[in-house]
Amino acid sequence: MPAPALRNDTLAPAVIDALKARFGEALSTAAAIRLQHGKDESYHAPHLPDAVVFARSTEDVADAVKICAAYKVPIIPYGTGTSLEGQVAALEGGVSIDLKEMNRVLRVSAEDLDVTVEPGVTRKQLNEHLRDTGLFFPIDPGADASIGGMASTRASGTNAVRYGTMRDNVLALKVVLPDGRVISTGRRARKSAAGYDLTRLFVGSEGTLGVITEVTLRLYGIPAAISSAMCSFATIEDAVNTVIMTIQSGIPVARIELADDVQMKAIRLHSKLDVPEAPTLWLEFHGTEASVAEQAEAVQAIAKEFGGNDFSWTTLPEDRKKLWQARHDAAYANKTLAPGKQMWATDVCVPISRLAECISETKKDIAGSFMLAPLVGHVGDGNFHLTLMLDPDDPKDVAEAERLNERLVARALAMDGTCTGEHGVGYGKIQFLEAEHGEALSVMRTLKRALDPDNIMNPGKIVRV
Amino acid sequence: MPAPALRNDTLAPAVIDALKARFGEALSTAAAIRLQHGKDESYHAPHLPDAVVFARSTEDVADAVKICAAYKVPIIPYGTGTSLEGQVAALEGGVSIDLKEMNRVLRVSAEDLDVTVEPGVTRKQLNEHLRDTGLFFPIDPGADASIGGMASTRASGTNAVRYGTMRDNVLALKVVLPDGRVISTGRRARKSAAGYDLTRLFVGSEGTLGVITEVTLRLYGIPAAISSAMCSFATIEDAVNTVIMTIQSGIPVARIELADDVQMKAIRLHSKLDVPEAPTLWLEFHGTEASVAEQAEAVQAIAKEFGGNDFSWTTLPEDRKKLWQARHDAAYANKTLAPGKQMWATDVCVPISRLAECISETKKDIAGSFMLAPLVGHVGDGNFHLTLMLDPDDPKDVAEAERLNERLVARALAMDGTCTGEHGVGYGKIQFLEAEHGEALSVMRTLKRALDPDNIMNPGKIVRV
Repeated sequence: MPAPALRNDTLAPAVIDALKARFGEALSTAAAIRLQHGKDESYHAPHLPDAVVFARSTEDVADAVKICAAYKVPIIPYGTGTSLEGQVAALEGGVSIDLKEMNRVLRVSAEDLDVTVEPGVTRKQLNEHLRDTGLFFPIDPGADASIGGMASTRASGTNAVRYGTMRDNVLALKVVLPDGRVISTGRRARKSAAGYDLTRLFVGSEGTLGVITEVTLRLYGIPAAISSAMCSFATIEDAVNTVIMTIQSGIPVARIELADDVQMKAIRLHSKLDVPEAPTLWLEFHGTEASVAEQAEAVQAIAKEFGGNDFSWTTLPEDRKKLWQARHDAAYANKTLAPGKQMWATDVCVPISRLAECISETKKDIAGSFMLAPLVGHVGDGNFHLTLMLDPDDPKDVAEAERLNERLVARALAMDGTCTGEHGVGYGKIQFLEAEHGEALSVMRTLKRALDPDNIMNPGKIVRV
Repeated sequence: MPAPALRNDTLAPAVIDALKARFGEALSTAAAIRLQHGKDESYHAPHLPDAVVFARSTEDVADAVKICAAYKVPIIPYGTGTSLEGQVAALEGGVSIDLKEMNRVLRVSAEDLDVTVEPGVTRKQLNEHLRDTGLFFPIDPGADASIGGMASTRASGTNAVRYGTMRDNVLALKVVLPDGRVISTGRRARKSAAGYDLTRLFVGSEGTLGVITEVTLRLYGIPAAISSAMCSFATIEDAVNTVIMTIQSGIPVARIELADDVQMKAIRLHSKLDVPEAPTLWLEFHGTEASVAEQAEAVQAIAKEFGGNDFSWTTLPEDRKKLWQARHDAAYANKTLAPGKQMWATDVCVPISRLAECISETKKDIAGSFMLAPLVGHVGDGNFHLTLMLDPDDPKDVAEAERLNERLVARALAMDGTCTGEHGVGYGKIQFLEAEHGEALSVMRTLKRALDPDNIMNPGKIVRV
């Protein structure tokens, strides 16, 4: 069983034979299928798996893992392919396990405000399913990602400032381990002090420690009242300072989103919306009618101090939808701004006291570059994104994007921040973990080696062993 | 280096010599000191360490660990000794590292709502320190525990229903590993997707993976308004159903505490307060003046549906203090109820939909026993405690307490709950982890072996290896 040889473009026929015998039509080695599974929504280069298994149950996953484990063949879990740091790339070949057919909502408890889903359920599908229960799942990373993928990358997004990230909202997981054993990492009690927190260990591990096959999530009652607001500012510092003071005042804002002037220009061009080309905040408040009015008034007063213009808030669903459309269009709008370019989305997160400084320095950096790079962010958490617009075939573009990205990460780390607030590591940010974690990275490596001694689970992501 | 021989009552002289040379007066082998460090506030039998090192810095801890590691001598971290499942007992002898002199608040950031403390800082000391900042740290497990100990046992308590547990409120840790290396598990950014969640791995690990020497915590603004309420019910089911409906309605209650009739009798006797000997709820609401009034009214309406009596709420600090005094006296009041008996405090946590059933069945169990066992709980999380009043020298008492405890745990597990919501495992609950976690327990064992191959970190707690 010569392991390295198997990690090439073609698997040993014995592996394919074994998978074929077990999975039949649910195994594919077609080029188009492999290509689709080796690439996510990031700029990072695709790496094709040798085969794709379409799993329909935990047993399917366990069997696929056991076969691969026997031959020490890499396994890469695949949800919707919407990751942003190359998490699904089959760097050393191997077998992609596609989980999108595992898309059943297994159980909803309105009494306990929780739900158990298969990993292929997407967040929109889940909220659609919940529609008549009065409950919702708040985590919204933008893409209609799968819940399994969101757990794997510790996703967060616009509502995290109020509801937390996947770290806070996963109650328990079912996981297939690298040797095919199946474990449950927790129970449905809201809290437990009964041993090591395996749930949190697997959340954010990007498929490098096992394959998630069930996710139990917290749910929330749909707020009695929701109000949204939008407000533009003369400078980005004014916008950011409005955010900082809002957070420091303890106002339980549900969303507080920033876009810079460049991003607003892109949105204006793309969506044909009458929005100003100026730094803009979107806000959302959840609560009772009285409390959302109180929150909106408090933030309006803060925004006014920083010269915020036309602070308008609305509670009507139709108006809210229109208002948020602009924010949701941000990513795709960038293609209008820079036709023919591709997007390299990167994100960092810093303590909120350093957010204004971090954003200002980043804007200066971009101003001194030839590269277009709209800035947008979940600023209530100190988290923001740059979208570097580049031609991947132009070495000058690539070098400049790399330079800006490295400087952004170094800046965030120097401010006691992190190299990624929500996109994760994949292989796109793996080189920054040493600088971020120091000796703690060796502990991550120890954990990886202990749980996956043959390094078959999504090798080359998070930690190299 | 005959490791097993060292794990007896007397350490090899070479270890003591090495520790003495490094720590001088900060090392003690006095019987009284050893006794104090081998016992917590639980009923569980004390086990004395062979020596105690009083650490004053991370370097002290790292040096003590390195010396112990060289001789494969057990290390038991010690904070305030207020644990409840024998977490500090030196089951195999060894060296207790007392952290109470590491009690400096290292840094407060009002801007970022966070703080970094040494592990010996107690929660009351921290809140005293914060008094002039307008901020507070909400986690309140009852005892004035050390922050390091609270992180180690994943403590929670009365405010957890609103603010979460230590799991949710520790941003980062500094940890001395079993080989003496020092790591930081995270940075000050509010969220990160940069690798495995080492912070959550060490939170709740009860000193079995390393010694915590710094803790960075989230803080919160002291609410503009706080209102408290107390309300008694004809039956415990009515009280619990009031809790369940409150939680299911999404009312962001800050505290919701239950005591049964037996507990109320103890409080009445002990505190000489004019409280009814009936199932009682305490509630607290945090927010703006308008929002606490709104919350209190909503809960009052629910309580009324379930026949709650004399729902009275107050916003005056003096009245609130008096109201909560009764709840805070609960544990010590039990000694008045059963003079000469000792307390065996146990806790479980279940999904809130099963809480009424779990509590009813538990009350029935106790009604059929000769043993007094007041019931009290952080019921908003589905978490409640029994205090089994026993004479530890009476085998009949001990057997009955064990029987009731085992039945309580089995009942909670059958309801998809956990054998401990907040007291932790120590060695008092270690025998239940197999039933709770199944195969996942072997993963915990793998993690323990990988990080502490010589099993020197608090051996015999959480997982036996």
